[in-house]
Amino acid sequence: MKIEGKNQVLEAIKNDVTINKILIDKNFATRRDDVINLARKNKLKIEFLPKKLLDAQSVTGHHQGYIAETVDFEYCSVEDILQNPKSTDGAFVVLLDGIEDPHNLGAIIRTCECGGVDGIIIPKMRACQVNETVVRTSAGAIANMKIARVANLKTAIDTLKENGLWIYACELGGENIFKQNLTGNIAVVIGSEGNGIKQSLRDYCDGVLTLPLKGSVNSLNASVSAGIVIYEVVRQRQNDK
Amino acid sequence: MKIEGKNQVLEAIKNDVTINKILIDKNFATRRDDVINLARKNKLKIEFLPKKLLDAQSVTGHHQGYIAETVDFEYCSVEDILQNPKSTDGAFVVLLDGIEDPHNLGAIIRTCECGGVDGIIIPKMRACQVNETVVRTSAGAIANMKIARVANLKTAIDTLKENGLWIYACELGGENIFKQNLTGNIAVVIGSEGNGIKQSLRDYCDGVLTLPLKGSVNSLNASVSAGIVIYEVVRQRQNDK
Repeated sequence: MKIEGKNQVLEAIKNDVTINKILIDKNFATRRDDVINLARKNKLKIEFLPKKLLDAQSVTGHHQGYIAETVDFEYCSVEDILQNPKSTDGAFVVLLDGIEDPHNLGAIIRTCECGGVDGIIIPKMRACQVNETVVRTSAGAIANMKIARVANLKTAIDTLKENGLWIYACELGGENIFKQNLTGNIAVVIGSEGNGIKQSLRDYCDGVLTLPLKGSVNSLNASVSAGIVIYEVVRQRQNDK
Repeated sequence: MKIEGKNQVLEAIKNDVTINKILIDKNFATRRDDVINLARKNKLKIEFLPKKLLDAQSVTGHHQGYIAETVDFEYCSVEDILQNPKSTDGAFVVLLDGIEDPHNLGAIIRTCECGGVDGIIIPKMRACQVNETVVRTSAGAIANMKIARVANLKTAIDTLKENGLWIYACELGGENIFKQNLTGNIAVVIGSEGNGIKQSLRDYCDGVLTLPLKGSVNSLNASVSAGIVIYEVVRQRQNDK
């Protein structure tokens, strides 16, 4: 897999992503350059190439002169996510029911990392997987986030329930999110861009959380609503102390 | 300007956007179709065209068989935004200091509409303006949102201050947003994707709000952080009652 863009490559090095080599625009070779300095310090292989060859290597088209070639993204298991929660407030897991847009997936991964989420669970089928665009949009957060890929989200929810997590679907028609207690071990399910959460999965959750909508448009962008939900958990955990 | 996509065109008609005509895939002419029904009810001109001609007319490439040709987007003034606040809680304005990505601008407009924001202020220079991609990404919200375009954000802030609004910059290094009182007349300033808020503009605000970050990535996507900030205001207004 390729990580592209200056900040993305810097974050990847800082987070000890396994990097095979870093391709850098040869015009940068003589510069004082953060990436070059850090890569040398970490004894990583650097290859200086003309911009044209970098363009040819680029998948996203936004390399800014820096491409890190990494080993493929390694998914983990649901059990891995539940080991060693980041916070003493309990486990915090995000399930995505069929996010299709890599920009949304990348933005959600970034928000999860910032919000202290322990891990993300995505379905293997009919959903965006971790690809170059996702890595780029995550702005480096991917290197610091556990992601499990499962055949069946219900089975994953069973595992979460057995481990004492409360599972909330984020959808229209539920309880006002700002009036719910979201402290303790928690998992939130975010629906897909077009169709929300499948009814059967929604029924499988312990409750439904809804964001108040004041306008005539009846939904928010998937990554925005995920962000609001994740940070409401962050807020309640902070106030709980 | 063109509004493309089924839901987008439906929202535009419902919100009385001035539409010159609606172009529809001629294969849909014999269907029971929401757009056709609503357009006929509103006595709008419909033109049925082969898909190929729609493709040629499309700007975004995502028309789904529906393109509404509207008059150009009409910006309003800062004073227009302050007339008739939507909520009895006071005025609620969002300023954007140089958002460059039309997807982010569209998503922020959508969030503002859902959150009951009275209006958005954007700079004329060095920032994304309302274009077809913005309209599409806003999912119809644009038809229901006042947007002012100004030469100087500081002058706009002067006007807001004169009208009794408190102005908060959303940036790193400020007060924890969840510990601030955000009720009453308020305006929040959101920075650009790459550079945040210009220092001089930040100093011009009454305070700086910061989202707690728990990970190693030190920023959220611009439209996600705007969403969290806007909904924190929504939450506090609701709890204030």
